[in-house]
Amino acid sequence: MSEQYILLDHGSGGLASQQLISELFLKYLTSPLLASLEDSAVFTVSGNCLAMSTDSYVVDPLFFPGGDIGMLAVHGTINDLAMRGARPLYLSLAFILEEGLAINDLERVLQSIAKCSNEAGVPIVTGDTKVVPRGKADKIFINTSGIGLVPDERSISVSQARKGDKILLSGSMGDHGITIMTRRAGLSLEGELRSDTMALHGLVDHLCTTFPGAIHTLRDPTRGGVASTLCEIAEQAKAAITLDEESLPISASVRAGCEILGLDPLYLANEGKMLVICSPNQANDIVNAMQHHPQGHEAAIIGEIIDGPAGRVTLHTGLGGERLVTPLHGQPLPRIC
Amino acid sequence: MSEQYILLDHGSGGLASQQLISELFLKYLTSPLLASLEDSAVFTVSGNCLAMSTDSYVVDPLFFPGGDIGMLAVHGTINDLAMRGARPLYLSLAFILEEGLAINDLERVLQSIAKCSNEAGVPIVTGDTKVVPRGKADKIFINTSGIGLVPDERSISVSQARKGDKILLSGSMGDHGITIMTRRAGLSLEGELRSDTMALHGLVDHLCTTFPGAIHTLRDPTRGGVASTLCEIAEQAKAAITLDEESLPISASVRAGCEILGLDPLYLANEGKMLVICSPNQANDIVNAMQHHPQGHEAAIIGEIIDGPAGRVTLHTGLGGERLVTPLHGQPLPRIC
Repeated sequence: MSEQYILLDHGSGGLASQQLISELFLKYLTSPLLASLEDSAVFTVSGNCLAMSTDSYVVDPLFFPGGDIGMLAVHGTINDLAMRGARPLYLSLAFILEEGLAINDLERVLQSIAKCSNEAGVPIVTGDTKVVPRGKADKIFINTSGIGLVPDERSISVSQARKGDKILLSGSMGDHGITIMTRRAGLSLEGELRSDTMALHGLVDHLCTTFPGAIHTLRDPTRGGVASTLCEIAEQAKAAITLDEESLPISASVRAGCEILGLDPLYLANEGKMLVICSPNQANDIVNAMQHHPQGHEAAIIGEIIDGPAGRVTLHTGLGGERLVTPLHGQPLPRIC
Repeated sequence: MSEQYILLDHGSGGLASQQLISELFLKYLTSPLLASLEDSAVFTVSGNCLAMSTDSYVVDPLFFPGGDIGMLAVHGTINDLAMRGARPLYLSLAFILEEGLAINDLERVLQSIAKCSNEAGVPIVTGDTKVVPRGKADKIFINTSGIGLVPDERSISVSQARKGDKILLSGSMGDHGITIMTRRAGLSLEGELRSDTMALHGLVDHLCTTFPGAIHTLRDPTRGGVASTLCEIAEQAKAAITLDEESLPISASVRAGCEILGLDPLYLANEGKMLVICSPNQANDIVNAMQHHPQGHEAAIIGEIIDGPAGRVTLHTGLGGERLVTPLHGQPLPRIC
């Protein structure tokens, strides 16, 4: 590593995060399952195909419009499992608590975790709690890990993405990121900014069951946003991606917030959206099915995988221009999830 | 909860931890798998019996004689799986890093994680990294979660413990706890105090294979030490426990450290030891097999499960007296693992 110290950029989900992982982590941790850098690892145990995933949550503030750290922790790990086509089965839950935390706050977070876990049908089956002295953590950090069962016929990964495949986004971009951002800035914007935190496994299962073999790759564009996630996909799939700006779903209030704060919604985190890469001849049917599902009613076809240099992502603007989309460098906002 | 704020005691592994879990966590999280409060959850997926466990590690200092936070993180979760008789298969690894952390320190921890994972034959297959601003965490926090496969014939849990069963300890007590304690106090003691951090799945597998059906309960006495862990077992098994003080294995240097610092080794954390509750008629053979295994050469029979009030643990002292052993209340030492 050229840098000597960990910077906030290393946690951004953008270029610095990727470098830390590829130059340091993968130098020592050599499992091929890890090296694939998917949202979860998929492996076979006694003939069953299982998925396993982990995520820590350090969002600040703990509570925000549309959700809280507990909701993110349940939905985020469920979504990471679903992004490999898995049906999530069980979650673990580990807290790091700061001494002096109000037990009422912990209780609110627990209520939220219980509600989300019940609604999703994915129980918390094992846990751990550590407490560190005041000033050695920030209120509540949560880790959730999860396991899921991947139905036999499903093989969803970035290695399945092919040239010509269409790229779909399951709903509007940037709602979570801009909600946290305006909350922290103390801004009160018109409209209703709310985090989009949501479990997507129902939608994934519906699509995979209805369109067997047509869904090639799934990714949830969390830290680093749609732009960074697509750059990663293009890099890993050794292909280029073209996006159509006018088709990108963005709510009016997110657009307004981004204009005020000078942010690009392509780089804002989402916590209840997914990118779907699918067979071009079924893309219209798939987007239609998404739009009729409660977790995807604003779904849109936003681009396609094309011939071109590996990792190149271009955006065709409304004015007929073309803009290069690069991965996030630095961070518009730390501690987004 | 009667307290309004989280205290360090809530993370001690003693009485306050148990109260937090039973009065707050289990009020909202209602899975029977979680309610069993075992070291890992055991469930069946498509006919296979799997174990899942999670633990966060916040030890201070990061590096100490005999180990570091990375070793604890790998061994600890492997051991939690093994305590249900599982063969550990895969681990996840999630870092929370403090901005400003020296990358050299992270690299040392990664090297250690890789070494332990390789030696144990349990690969890291999925991961996550978050970075929080300086002062919002303490250098490195790690979560590892893991899954393992429980061989068909094994059923190891506290519910299997029976009156008359013998209680074995796989080696000397308190080495990890006193090492961290003296390190933090800046004491330099004679002798060689070292953490006992070690993966125990090899020993567990050996015992379960050699003595099928004879091993009833396994627990690793980490936070809260042998005393608190046995109090928990007695409570859950609805029985009493009697211990023989003279048979408790303690090294001379741990005993010396405890005398200087005024600590009781029964309450000190261990990171490479386990309590084995087994059929009385095979206890001698089992302790003999442990003593011939590299992970158990100081094993001893330390007590037995007897008729008596649920949760009552008594220690028969060398002078012929009897002392009541209660769970840890408060904490001799926070951030021990």
